[in-house]
Amino acid sequence: MINTTDEKQETVPTLTMDIATQKVVGEVDRLLSTSPRIVRRYTEHLNKSQGKMIRAVSLLICASDEHGLIHEDAVKVAAAVELLHLATLVHDDIIDNADLRRGKVTLQKKYGKKTAVICGDYLFSVSLQLAASVSNKDAYIKIDIPNFIAKVCMGELSQHINNFNLALSVYAYMKIISGKTAALFAGSFYAGAVIAGAEKEALEKYRRLGHYIGMIFQLTDDFIDFEETVEVAKKPVRSDFEQGVITLPLILAMKQSEDLRKRSEARTITGEEIAKAVVKTGGLSSAKSVSKKYYKKAVTILEELDITHEKRANIMAVLNKAFYGTKLGVES
Amino acid sequence: MINTTDEKQETVPTLTMDIATQKVVGEVDRLLSTSPRIVRRYTEHLNKSQGKMIRAVSLLICASDEHGLIHEDAVKVAAAVELLHLATLVHDDIIDNADLRRGKVTLQKKYGKKTAVICGDYLFSVSLQLAASVSNKDAYIKIDIPNFIAKVCMGELSQHINNFNLALSVYAYMKIISGKTAALFAGSFYAGAVIAGAEKEALEKYRRLGHYIGMIFQLTDDFIDFEETVEVAKKPVRSDFEQGVITLPLILAMKQSEDLRKRSEARTITGEEIAKAVVKTGGLSSAKSVSKKYYKKAVTILEELDITHEKRANIMAVLNKAFYGTKLGVES
Repeated sequence: MINTTDEKQETVPTLTMDIATQKVVGEVDRLLSTSPRIVRRYTEHLNKSQGKMIRAVSLLICASDEHGLIHEDAVKVAAAVELLHLATLVHDDIIDNADLRRGKVTLQKKYGKKTAVICGDYLFSVSLQLAASVSNKDAYIKIDIPNFIAKVCMGELSQHINNFNLALSVYAYMKIISGKTAALFAGSFYAGAVIAGAEKEALEKYRRLGHYIGMIFQLTDDFIDFEETVEVAKKPVRSDFEQGVITLPLILAMKQSEDLRKRSEARTITGEEIAKAVVKTGGLSSAKSVSKKYYKKAVTILEELDITHEKRANIMAVLNKAFYGTKLGVES
Repeated sequence: MINTTDEKQETVPTLTMDIATQKVVGEVDRLLSTSPRIVRRYTEHLNKSQGKMIRAVSLLICASDEHGLIHEDAVKVAAAVELLHLATLVHDDIIDNADLRRGKVTLQKKYGKKTAVICGDYLFSVSLQLAASVSNKDAYIKIDIPNFIAKVCMGELSQHINNFNLALSVYAYMKIISGKTAALFAGSFYAGAVIAGAEKEALEKYRRLGHYIGMIFQLTDDFIDFEETVEVAKKPVRSDFEQGVITLPLILAMKQSEDLRKRSEARTITGEEIAKAVVKTGGLSSAKSVSKKYYKKAVTILEELDITHEKRANIMAVLNKAFYGTKLGVES
């Protein structure tokens, strides 16, 4: 169905991090811009709103060998992960009724929810076909992408069910982000390690490392939501609270302030007031301590991995990017 | 993620058609009723509206060997196909804004479109995990389920884009049903033959046979829509025309009657009047001739296959079921 690059496949890793990253961009680009005519206008629209590919980069780093080289298969699976992520965003935007994503108008806004349902499904299938086109079929089976999709779905579903649920527990929140965000990070780290030929014990460590980094990534994203709302009310979209998404800083803040809980429940409070209260009650800083704990867990596991200095530094850069939410470069 | 039946896997086909069919029902049942708590209420709801499993039965028949026995792997892939079909129905119902399906209230009506989007995605992932759990991984890769999903998506998308398009050509209509319905039939026949270990040339024949039978199945479904509307207006749901779905009998009828085309375009005609006009102008009988041509093609290919009398009779029963739309039993 899809055309995979028909250049001769190498059996050993030959790509540098830079080249592999460029190839992933190229592969995603190519698949979105050469899809069958009937879906092309939609996939081309999505091509304009590509993200920073933190999942794909993570996968490539984990797939790198002791010489820092990466197998062609990793490029395919990394591009598949980005397409899968894109598919979940297309369906997410339907659920959130979102108009904008990464500064661009969403597919569901531009072409309608019905089209977006089908386009998301189509992207799922393209992603899976691409991943299945790797030369090492055993690795493809072992990675078990549908397992991670199932987890993402359950996280999304749980978030949707708990929309506007101000009684959401810390445990339930953690469970939600473990599915909706951390599962795909865990999958990316795991997939990279599988392609690099890691043994069972190491594989499990990569998977856990990806899980922790994914948790941190989502926590940071949730913090930024409050910080931006406080700072300059510069958010181009509605805040999480206004969309009914209850996150850790607010959950912890409401534990400190019964007044905040009551006003939140009564919805007699603006997003900006909530954000200020979350800072004032210490909800935000408590939540940051939780993220810090994950950070330490990630560092501990990272130290246990028997890898080169360069690979460790690259993973560390991803971890810091997730934690600080800034555009820290990843060494190549 | 999913629990697959952990009984020891047989390496040779051991199941009769009856047993294999029961096992497929059991497998689908089990997966829908034992899914994680968060999705269980939705999957249990779907379990109540199970269909007649024509795709799964087709797959099992094609997978049967010269003794009429079927490999355990075929049960898994057949159940996966049914779950995949169910996933597409869940998303279809969102697109069609349907209240009822197989006489039961739809997921999107009962729990909302957002939940239905995620549940459909979840079912896709369960289906793929189940298929990937076969003992013969090469067969799983060869079957390439995502390829068929992509075709189904493109058919759905094309139908959606052409909603209410009365200028829809015969060619475009055929292309739509080739995707939305025939692709999954083609996939089922192909998958069964792969599991049975058929050679390349035979595999292609099975795939084409499945395609023809799928085309016939959809054509029959489209005919029934008009026939029921004429007969007693007994359709529990809106007719295809009322939903904007333009099908072959109407396309051919409008070629015969400019008046019908004008009134259809102006929408100054009821579903019942359309149905009567489609019969009167010969649109319905012309469309039935098209179906008959596919029937003959299917019979020709079926004759070319080097299979037992019993297997041929079983496939013939599926073909007749698709063509006559009645509940003809399938020999076991």
